[in-house]
Amino acid sequence: MKPHFNRVTIIGVGLLGASLGLAMKARRLAAHVVGVGHRMITLDTALARRAIDEASLDAAAAVKDADLVVLCTPVVRLIGLLDAIRPYCTREAVVTDVGSTKAALCAHAVRTWPTPRRFVGSHPMAGSEKFGPEHADADFYAGSVCLVETGPDLDTAAREVVVALWRAVDARVVDIDPALHDEVLAHTSHLPHVVASALARTAARHGKAPDLVGKGFHDTTRIADSRPEIWSEICLTNREAILAALAECQGNLEQFRAALAAEDGPALERLFEEGRAARRRVIEG
Amino acid sequence: MKPHFNRVTIIGVGLLGASLGLAMKARRLAAHVVGVGHRMITLDTALARRAIDEASLDAAAAVKDADLVVLCTPVVRLIGLLDAIRPYCTREAVVTDVGSTKAALCAHAVRTWPTPRRFVGSHPMAGSEKFGPEHADADFYAGSVCLVETGPDLDTAAREVVVALWRAVDARVVDIDPALHDEVLAHTSHLPHVVASALARTAARHGKAPDLVGKGFHDTTRIADSRPEIWSEICLTNREAILAALAECQGNLEQFRAALAAEDGPALERLFEEGRAARRRVIEG
Repeated sequence: MKPHFNRVTIIGVGLLGASLGLAMKARRLAAHVVGVGHRMITLDTALARRAIDEASLDAAAAVKDADLVVLCTPVVRLIGLLDAIRPYCTREAVVTDVGSTKAALCAHAVRTWPTPRRFVGSHPMAGSEKFGPEHADADFYAGSVCLVETGPDLDTAAREVVVALWRAVDARVVDIDPALHDEVLAHTSHLPHVVASALARTAARHGKAPDLVGKGFHDTTRIADSRPEIWSEICLTNREAILAALAECQGNLEQFRAALAAEDGPALERLFEEGRAARRRVIEG
Repeated sequence: MKPHFNRVTIIGVGLLGASLGLAMKARRLAAHVVGVGHRMITLDTALARRAIDEASLDAAAAVKDADLVVLCTPVVRLIGLLDAIRPYCTREAVVTDVGSTKAALCAHAVRTWPTPRRFVGSHPMAGSEKFGPEHADADFYAGSVCLVETGPDLDTAAREVVVALWRAVDARVVDIDPALHDEVLAHTSHLPHVVASALARTAARHGKAPDLVGKGFHDTTRIADSRPEIWSEICLTNREAILAALAECQGNLEQFRAALAAEDGPALERLFEEGRAARRRVIEG
């Protein structure tokens, strides 16, 4: 069922926040959208794009009458923000977020948010190399997967509202436990960013080499072009799981190094074969 | 100028060899194309596709009257093949190959091939996940870069013929020293295959996770789906350079690990920033 909100407060009006405002307004899901930011120029851009109806520099004031609050700031600010708005949210307000890591945030909410909990963590897996409200798109979330937190302390009705919200902006919702989310994403998203970056840095010693670069290098390093501050923060909020995944990957590279050093063709072939089979299994499900 | 050959012998009629046959015949560059293989079924497919006019199981016999010989076998066989055909090639024959590594092969040719040398190494950077003559395509090389060996002992006219051949099948030719070729490609092609494979193996512990896999994982691991035997052999023929590149990449990953373990946000951000800058420099030239 299509949800409808009287007053939506979106905190953080970058690409994700402004796109959500546009998506909700285009689909008539909200009567009034308030955007919260700390820089007037960003808020002005979001207003000019009609992603929000009203701009505010004060998150506490802006959440007071909201029936939906969506946190769209960088991940490192989410826990502090949740604490800051908690005294001002109404009992009826449904609160969610769009952060790329979930374990620490949702565990914090379990400890601090009133129960049954009406804060329900989300992770829409939509992205772009672009950023800022100037690139907002009403169909930004369309066709993407949105991971939505599961947990015994959640308010069932609030969770249904969050699920309905993402479905209404044309995302496909997948349920996930927050700890498992971070453990799996460490392997399928965070570690690939670390590895792509390390690979790009390794190639840098040759300087300019556009004629010697094929599609393989382009694709393996594409996400090395992501925003450094965003990825530094994502790594810090999923540190343990990424360290474990990285250590495992370092071990896998060391197996390759040893096989190549020993000129062990069958071992190399077996490792490449395992990589191919692993990728197919992970992706094809 | 468009070259023309009376008798072309293509040794190895897989995807690359059969595509070259098709490309030359479609562009009327060859009066007669002989394909050499060691399995009749592959040769029959190449014949059925009209990629070759005649099939042979005997490389020595097939090169005897050829004015152009192109070696299209897996890289590990190229040095042995060069030795095997040398006594049977005419003085006038121009010989080239399509191998992904060049240093060892070209160094061997410098030592063994008559001078001025009419064997000129090539590396067309065209590829596909598909293989076998059944996927051959007359435009397989169109729009790709073909790296062609430079060296003081090369016969100038023979080199011009090789350059003209690749241009005639619509590739763009870039000159390169064979040792530099392998050194750079270790970073821009071979190491990315090793790393993509290690990354895929690291993710495998989670088994099927298609809903938790974004475009980032898809792209960083795409080449992990390449043929294991081909990449094992490429690694073995460029062992020293890949070992050096791999050690460097392992060092870069270790820097990431240390910064993350220390929760050093500025260091992490600096590493991601270096990766982004490095990729742009390498690719954009």
